[in-house]
Amino acid sequence: MTVRFGLLGAGRIGKVHAQAVGSNTQGRLVAVADTFEKAAKEISAAYGAEVRTIEAMERASDIDAVVICTPTDTHADLIERFARAGKAIFCEKPIDLDVKRVEKCLAVVDKTRAALMVGFNRRFDPHFAAVRKAIDEGAIGAVEMVTITSRDPGAPPLDYVARSGGIFRDMTIHDFDMARFLLGEELVAVSAHASVLVDKKIGEAGDFDSASVILETATGKQCVISNSRRATYGYDQRIEVHGSKGMIAAENQRPVSIELANEKGYTRPPLHDFFMTRYIDAYANEIVAFIAAVTAGTKTSPSGQDGLAALKLADAALKSVKQRKAIRLDTAAERNLGPMS
Amino acid sequence: MTVRFGLLGAGRIGKVHAQAVGSNTQGRLVAVADTFEKAAKEISAAYGAEVRTIEAMERASDIDAVVICTPTDTHADLIERFARAGKAIFCEKPIDLDVKRVEKCLAVVDKTRAALMVGFNRRFDPHFAAVRKAIDEGAIGAVEMVTITSRDPGAPPLDYVARSGGIFRDMTIHDFDMARFLLGEELVAVSAHASVLVDKKIGEAGDFDSASVILETATGKQCVISNSRRATYGYDQRIEVHGSKGMIAAENQRPVSIELANEKGYTRPPLHDFFMTRYIDAYANEIVAFIAAVTAGTKTSPSGQDGLAALKLADAALKSVKQRKAIRLDTAAERNLGPMS
Amino acid sequence: MTVRFGLLGAGRIGKVHAQAVGSNTQGRLVAVADTFEKAAKEISAAYGAEVRTIEAMERASDIDAVVICTPTDTHADLIERFARAGKAIFCEKPIDLDVKRVEKCLAVVDKTRAALMVGFNRRFDPHFAAVRKAIDEGAIGAVEMVTITSRDPGAPPLDYVARSGGIFRDMTIHDFDMARFLLGEELVAVSAHASVLVDKKIGEAGDFDSASVILETATGKQCVISNSRRATYGYDQRIEVHGSKGMIAAENQRPVSIELANEKGYTRPPLHDFFMTRYIDAYANEIVAFIAAVTAGTKTSPSGQDGLAALKLADAALKSVKQRKAIRLDTAAERNLGPMS
Amino acid sequence: MTVRFGLLGAGRIGKVHAQAVGSNTQGRLVAVADTFEKAAKEISAAYGAEVRTIEAMERASDIDAVVICTPTDTHADLIERFARAGKAIFCEKPIDLDVKRVEKCLAVVDKTRAALMVGFNRRFDPHFAAVRKAIDEGAIGAVEMVTITSRDPGAPPLDYVARSGGIFRDMTIHDFDMARFLLGEELVAVSAHASVLVDKKIGEAGDFDSASVILETATGKQCVISNSRRATYGYDQRIEVHGSKGMIAAENQRPVSIELANEKGYTRPPLHDFFMTRYIDAYANEIVAFIAAVTAGTKTSPSGQDGLAALKLADAALKSVKQRKAIRLDTAAERNLGPMS
Repeated sequence: MTVRFGLLGAGRIGKVHAQAVGSNTQGRLVAVADTFEKAAKEISAAYGAEVRTIEAMERASDIDAVVICTPTDTHADLIERFARAGKAIFCEKPIDLDVKRVEKCLAVVDKTRAALMVGFNRRFDPHFAAVRKAIDEGAIGAVEMVTITSRDPGAPPLDYVARSGGIFRDMTIHDFDMARFLLGEELVAVSAHASVLVDKKIGEAGDFDSASVILETATGKQCVISNSRRATYGYDQRIEVHGSKGMIAAENQRPVSIELANEKGYTRPPLHDFFMTRYIDAYANEIVAFIAAVTAGTKTSPSGQDGLAALKLADAALKSVKQRKAIRLDTAAERNLGPMS
Repeated sequence: MTVRFGLLGAGRIGKVHAQAVGSNTQGRLVAVADTFEKAAKEISAAYGAEVRTIEAMERASDIDAVVICTPTDTHADLIERFARAGKAIFCEKPIDLDVKRVEKCLAVVDKTRAALMVGFNRRFDPHFAAVRKAIDEGAIGAVEMVTITSRDPGAPPLDYVARSGGIFRDMTIHDFDMARFLLGEELVAVSAHASVLVDKKIGEAGDFDSASVILETATGKQCVISNSRRATYGYDQRIEVHGSKGMIAAENQRPVSIELANEKGYTRPPLHDFFMTRYIDAYANEIVAFIAAVTAGTKTSPSGQDGLAALKLADAALKSVKQRKAIRLDTAAERNLGPMS
Repeated sequence: MTVRFGLLGAGRIGKVHAQAVGSNTQGRLVAVADTFEKAAKEISAAYGAEVRTIEAMERASDIDAVVICTPTDTHADLIERFARAGKAIFCEKPIDLDVKRVEKCLAVVDKTRAALMVGFNRRFDPHFAAVRKAIDEGAIGAVEMVTITSRDPGAPPLDYVARSGGIFRDMTIHDFDMARFLLGEELVAVSAHASVLVDKKIGEAGDFDSASVILETATGKQCVISNSRRATYGYDQRIEVHGSKGMIAAENQRPVSIELANEKGYTRPPLHDFFMTRYIDAYANEIVAFIAAVTAGTKTSPSGQDGLAALKLADAALKSVKQRKAIRLDTAAERNLGPMS
Repeated sequence: MTVRFGLLGAGRIGKVHAQAVGSNTQGRLVAVADTFEKAAKEISAAYGAEVRTIEAMERASDIDAVVICTPTDTHADLIERFARAGKAIFCEKPIDLDVKRVEKCLAVVDKTRAALMVGFNRRFDPHFAAVRKAIDEGAIGAVEMVTITSRDPGAPPLDYVARSGGIFRDMTIHDFDMARFLLGEELVAVSAHASVLVDKKIGEAGDFDSASVILETATGKQCVISNSRRATYGYDQRIEVHGSKGMIAAENQRPVSIELANEKGYTRPPLHDFFMTRYIDAYANEIVAFIAAVTAGTKTSPSGQDGLAALKLADAALKSVKQRKAIRLDTAAERNLGPMS
């Protein structure tokens, strides 16, 4: 079986997903939609696909699944529309910046029994996935303490900051998902500190650029997250999981692994400086997993509920910063979450 | 000038300090006191010193300085006695487990103008000291985020746990001092989570064995600390400082640095499994620094105020765990602290 | 301009090159030939190409270039035929196992002015290429000593060993090319030792499985090569270049870069265990370079003369083992070699 | 039992050995001799020893052992004198630069049954010793290929070069001993290349500054050595042993192990820049081993025969460079060597 795809949004992430579909022997790109028609044409030409409107895709009988890469504020609407149209849906994170809106959207997904996968691509990074696999194999015994270091090479443009939902919903949200992925237990409490150390204008825009977070599960497992919007040495992305029998970690990745030695010392090149090169394999692998789930009719993961859970953690972190206390998560809602993938 | 020493306490730390004094061309061990006379005799014999009572040392004209390695609950008394006796004092941390008692003791030190140095030996670890030096030289620009990982190879005996003052006052206190040493600013807020993941009996004794802490300075600089009482891979002691222009880190140390490669992969030996081998150089270097300060008549550092500040952070962390909120430090008292070394 | 390709040989390397051509926007796979028709059909189907005979490709006006991935003993003939047919040629190494045959073949290439590139793929490994680039940028000053470690995960099948031309022509030949690539000077002397330590049957087949080689240039620059046909820890491929101002090295690559710590120590996974995964990027990059050279009409590199030079070094190494002396290379012939790329 | 020592030669190595004796609870420094009396006084004062003449030491009943740190050309004479005087002897390498002289000296040692240990300190480096231990424990199966990289931070003064015996007898000799130590088999063949790449004046003095060597044992085990008299990145001292079941290696050592990351990459400090700091532990450990052997009456190792074997390899390497062929070692003489330690 080949999964026939419609691509919504032909920007840089759209291109990445188009290539992932195009190079997958089980996937075929059938149609591309973008309000900027030139972008849609370029991608469709490269993969033998057509340019279509979103409406045409909803009605199309030759499309099994869509990849949503449009602006964030359109995600929830599009998910609902294509859930109702009976298509499998891969949606870039986040579903929405507002928890209520996400919950309403997931109710539609639930009712239509649509297959929905949210693009928390880091779960598919080969190194992070290998860490999860080692944990599953019992390599470190019971998971106890997770450490996530996540720093961007540089702050995003200020207009992006303004509409990003803030550092916790935009940046830390990946780390919240990774914490859930690695701890394997729902989180019940969040303490966070945040400040403006990189760029005062980020503060003037009502956001933070530096944050530290502690997460805790019901059984007392802990996770610390360290975020900064600027790292001169590249895109700093590390995870470390300490358990009863040992520790497993995934170190940073760099484009080339050479080392120069001279009177100044031993120098390796900086890290990747861009999330798309750092996570190039992860982007490809998540589409592989999506196609495999759709083909086999199995559960897509990470799910919409995973997206919701991460967003709630982001909201709780922000609340913790403002109220200067640990925030207890609404465990009643948490209880409804499906099992973690 | 040679500094003539009396050693109070001939246990394992006492032996370490005796050797540090004995191998220093500027120091000479004159007398040793211990309620367990055999221990005192052994050390004194090895270094050509005498066994004396504490009282005799107070009155002795041939002793310039004392090293206090007796049990914690005697520290404050001994500091006061030798401060009044006009001796320079090197005291193992902590001064006391009670803030009020420490403050009273430091008032005596203040009044007698005694030279007092507290044994926060990690400041003198060559690798950690090199990190501090690099920061001072501007290598990473302005310090922003400090990450301290500090895990013991195994939990201490339960009877020790009971009288230790708890994980924050016993174990994290080193990390609090290191945070102050590296941040170079006083801390104004603490959030902490702690739980029992290693050994239920530690919990039954009223203590925790796993903790995560966020510290924040008035300017928004942050530090995260991760503690565990058990690490199968050895004594895990890492620091990392992220700044505006870069990052500097000190990695773990191991007794031998070989690597074995076979079908299972590439394996390096575990870390040091004992704090005294891990910090062997640090113990020697702190005595070197103490002797140098006493000889030159300069300020000893870390000071009694440094000891007090770390203890206050420990108290605040415990309060944060119990009250589930960020604890604001008493900055009025903080304001009285001398400049950090 | 698009370079239209014919692929000769549809085995595992053929598939790799087909994908490299197929995913290159400047290349198109037009036809595939293989005596095993099923293999040819599979590849041609995947890339929208036709199955054709070699003869048909020679005459085809819709083919600009061929990639030769057929058995070694057909390479020289095919190069001559397609050189005469006016096609650009990419040929897997080696051109032939016999120096005379290679020289005769290159004479035809010379006369027909055909563009010929030999598949020394390691020059295109991103890490090794970065080493060469750093040297070119003066990072280590004048190159003085090159160290190449090259060990296979396991010995090839004995029937392969028998027709391989021996360890120096089959395995070390890559290292000889790498030595020339890194030293940037022709070699004038070779000393080699070889023995059978891995598998006695390799010895019975008249070959060696373990070898050490010293190469020297006219100006006294040196290179040491260490080869083994078996490494339990994976495909061991390292280069290191020491120069007047420093050293630059490329370390081994592994599929995932995680690290597990427990009471046995700190373990990273083994290396790649297969040359095709280890050099996956190099295979793609060499086709990119070939297409770029053909498109631009520039010199292809590594050239047929590079292939000949490496083969001569292999012959000299074997002679050195047998005669137990340093072998001086025929510098008159060497003098005719073009400048190194 | 305490071993009472006489120290011959109070230069920088003499000081190192004096400290090793002085800090050993089983050793005591009794007397120091040096033609430069001030140096002898300084050391003797520091350790409560006397200044004596060599003659007085020969006759002294309060001296059990001597440490010979005088200039190379006096070593053989002094060994003979103190062997006849019935003292245990620790002698800095080499015994002499001339094989005949060494053989004559060892004949005296043999006849007098004196305990003689030669200062190949690298065997006692904790990291190298751990490699040997792992081999003994079967960690890598049968040893097959040894790789030794040995580069000095900078070339020695030209007047030293002139009387050093040349690079092979002065510098590579340590690597020859390490090869024997790690291979665990006698060597039967040597091929070497050497040239002048660092400093022309070294060439004018009749020596080389860059060398590559292959060693081979009777069973075909191989060792490659890479030497240079200048490495901008510090004192480069690495060993790597490849065997049938795996590989074990000891990496370089640096004074502090911090890492700085910034836009230029990740930089660790240079290596040790001086053999005495790099091998500080090795110098102490070899004296510990000597004292232990003398106290227990067991065989001292490395022995005089080990010194002779390494010197013969140096001579053979030089011959190989000059005759441009592999040199077969005189196995009859080799056969007389005792078992390797």
